Amino acid sequence: MSRISKVVVTPVAFADPPLLNVVGVHQPWALRAIVELHTDTGLVGLGETYADETHLTRLDAVARVLPGADPYDTHGLRRLVVDVLGKETGGAGASFGGMLDVSSAVDTVYSPFEVACLDLVAREAGRPVSDLLGGAVRERVPFSGYMFYKWAGHPGAVSDGGGDDEWGEALNPEQIVAQARRLVDGWGFGSLKLKGGVFHPDEECAAIEALRDAFPDLPLRLDPNGAWTPETSVKVAERLAGVVEYLEDPTPGIEGMAQVSARTDVPLATNMCVIAFEHLKPAIAADAVQIVLSDHHLWGGLRQSALLGGITETFGLGLSMHSNSHLGISLAAMVHLAAATPNLTYACDTHYPWKTQDVVRPGVLDFSDGAITVPTGPGLGVELDRDLLGELHEQYLGCGVRRREDTVYMRSFEPDFTPNTSRW
Amino acid sequence: MSRISKVVVTPVAFADPPLLNVVGVHQPWALRAIVELHTDTGLVGLGETYADETHLTRLDAVARVLPGADPYDTHGLRRLVVDVLGKETGGAGASFGGMLDVSSAVDTVYSPFEVACLDLVAREAGRPVSDLLGGAVRERVPFSGYMFYKWAGHPGAVSDGGGDDEWGEALNPEQIVAQARRLVDGWGFGSLKLKGGVFHPDEECAAIEALRDAFPDLPLRLDPNGAWTPETSVKVAERLAGVVEYLEDPTPGIEGMAQVSARTDVPLATNMCVIAFEHLKPAIAADAVQIVLSDHHLWGGLRQSALLGGITETFGLGLSMHSNSHLGISLAAMVHLAAATPNLTYACDTHYPWKTQDVVRPGVLDFSDGAITVPTGPGLGVELDRDLLGELHEQYLGCGVRRREDTVYMRSFEPDFTPNTSRW
Repeated sequence: MSRISKVVVTPVAFADPPLLNVVGVHQPWALRAIVELHTDTGLVGLGETYADETHLTRLDAVARVLPGADPYDTHGLRRLVVDVLGKETGGAGASFGGMLDVSSAVDTVYSPFEVACLDLVAREAGRPVSDLLGGAVRERVPFSGYMFYKWAGHPGAVSDGGGDDEWGEALNPEQIVAQARRLVDGWGFGSLKLKGGVFHPDEECAAIEALRDAFPDLPLRLDPNGAWTPETSVKVAERLAGVVEYLEDPTPGIEGMAQVSARTDVPLATNMCVIAFEHLKPAIAADAVQIVLSDHHLWGGLRQSALLGGITETFGLGLSMHSNSHLGISLAAMVHLAAATPNLTYACDTHYPWKTQDVVRPGVLDFSDGAITVPTGPGLGVELDRDLLGELHEQYLGCGVRRREDTVYMRSFEPDFTPNTSRW
Repeated sequence: MSRISKVVVTPVAFADPPLLNVVGVHQPWALRAIVELHTDTGLVGLGETYADETHLTRLDAVARVLPGADPYDTHGLRRLVVDVLGKETGGAGASFGGMLDVSSAVDTVYSPFEVACLDLVAREAGRPVSDLLGGAVRERVPFSGYMFYKWAGHPGAVSDGGGDDEWGEALNPEQIVAQARRLVDGWGFGSLKLKGGVFHPDEECAAIEALRDAFPDLPLRLDPNGAWTPETSVKVAERLAGVVEYLEDPTPGIEGMAQVSARTDVPLATNMCVIAFEHLKPAIAADAVQIVLSDHHLWGGLRQSALLGGITETFGLGLSMHSNSHLGISLAAMVHLAAATPNLTYACDTHYPWKTQDVVRPGVLDFSDGAITVPTGPGLGVELDRDLLGELHEQYLGCGVRRREDTVYMRSFEPDFTPNTSRW
């Protein structure tokens, strides 16, 4: 096998609509870092991750020492990341808008390099990445349409990313139903998720009930990102029992989730209180959640996410998949992982309809009937378009955004805004 | 990638000394099944497993439908095993001498085929199997010397496998120390395990104490295979605290082990009450064990054993590796698995010194200083010697043994023998 000869990490930015959430609102630009691992035999393996500046610094530090490494040796890669980070692993280095944090940056830094290594190994073998994980158990990966409360557009001048976007405003049940209609008509989604935590839970329940009326057969999910107290969470669960397939993170923390879980039969999902391996033991001991949303960016790449899948199966938990603003390399990795995960019990979330630009050549990851056909070509199956990569890198250079700060951005319009965490 | 074109399952028998344990004594012949997966491109992938006749019937049923399959698609292989076994999965189909049983045969039947598939994939890639598991984290895998109480030889005529063997009798502390001396001098083992459950625990404790005197620096283990009550187990733990690195299966069952665990700080290990994924949740909830002994034959191959490794790491459990009578293909698989398991916290057990014949060409898996250097050649790194395979198959045909029955064999000498499980 060829060795890694060159590593390139390119920060990019792409336009992001003003999507509302518990901590504020998405900035006009979402950041990602594109990782390329080149080999001396001319192969290129791809990975994608966050691009908050602390994270970028860490990625660059790993990139400097990676040449010469063997793409098969992901255990060695992990040791290298641990060595490079040294004691500087506090926090993920990616703010996740202020909603999440992990105690160590090792998994988040390791992830894009691991994905790129598996891409290389699979390319050299002429096999899809899913084959490195035991083979695809499904030809098509189902996704859930991701709905957001949102403003009509970013305030401010169009030249600064302002102006109404094509999605329009969504601040009440009728507008949410219209957004759902667009997602279902355009992408064919067979289930829908609403990002809540923005308004009083009565309003968000009304939106879910309006969706139920408009789409009687579609499984629905509500995710307020911990906006509620345990008491309120139980009341919402009572109201939406039989209406939602699960409630995601109604309240913060393993202890709070366990209190809710003990008082409702509505399944509870999380991508907030269980986002690293260290959280599994206490969460399982407390019976805090019934479903974990995996995310290979957070959990340390594809093999560790497969491990998470095996753990959830072993302990009788359901499994779904988290998504935030990302581009096609991440989507391809998610599709291969989901394809090779036997116990993926729920359709994956996807932010994908909300992005208007990409860095990969189109045509590989198209949605039909709310699902993506698993690429069967070598590696991840996606190729960089270097013109697009250059364009999105220029946007990064020019946009001025250097970290995700939903709360700071919200306060530029509402100075008194405080995150809604446990607010209701 | 080439497809599987032909599958050959060959039962073999090799001479086994009269090793004593909780359920009786080893028969003169140990059985194994050698699995060969041939591809249309001329590659051969190897696997090895039990050969009790029920298990052989199941292996043959899978072998018949496997041609045409893709060696990468181990998820598909597993579905195929499930389909072939249908409802006929009761018990492992391998008696393990009467000491163990699992509720489903899927993992035990799947295992040798999975190993052979990984051998094929790795051979085609020109990489060692450990690379398919993320790469070797150690160049050498340490093993623990496995001591047994034993008779001087099998009773009966030499033509029937009788006559004294080269190891001689080991029925008291002095003879056990002599056996240990032979293992340490011959193989360089850096730790020692005594298979107990044969004599009153006072005698076995005395043997351990004699070993401690003779080998002050070597970690020691005692495994009575559930011969004791919880009460006795606690007393033994008190006596051997600071002397053994762990007690293995002092008493049967998760509940009994949990009772012992709650009353001692001596770590408890198991390869009896946690031998399948379904046992992990209750064992962890009860804090029944501190160390799990993995075994890819039981747990469903190398990837599922890697999953077990990840689960033990996630839940703060130690990890060691079980061994029973086997040949070089299994040893190679164990070495690659152990090499690629970061949290292997204890030296692996090995029965290997007790066998006098093999089916693989010598020179690859030699012990030095109690460890085996991980093969770096393609695949498992071992090659079948077809003359030896033929010889051991002839032994199978002629020996008359068709399943492992330690208790039945013991009763041929001591008609009133009953297994010592929970006896003391």
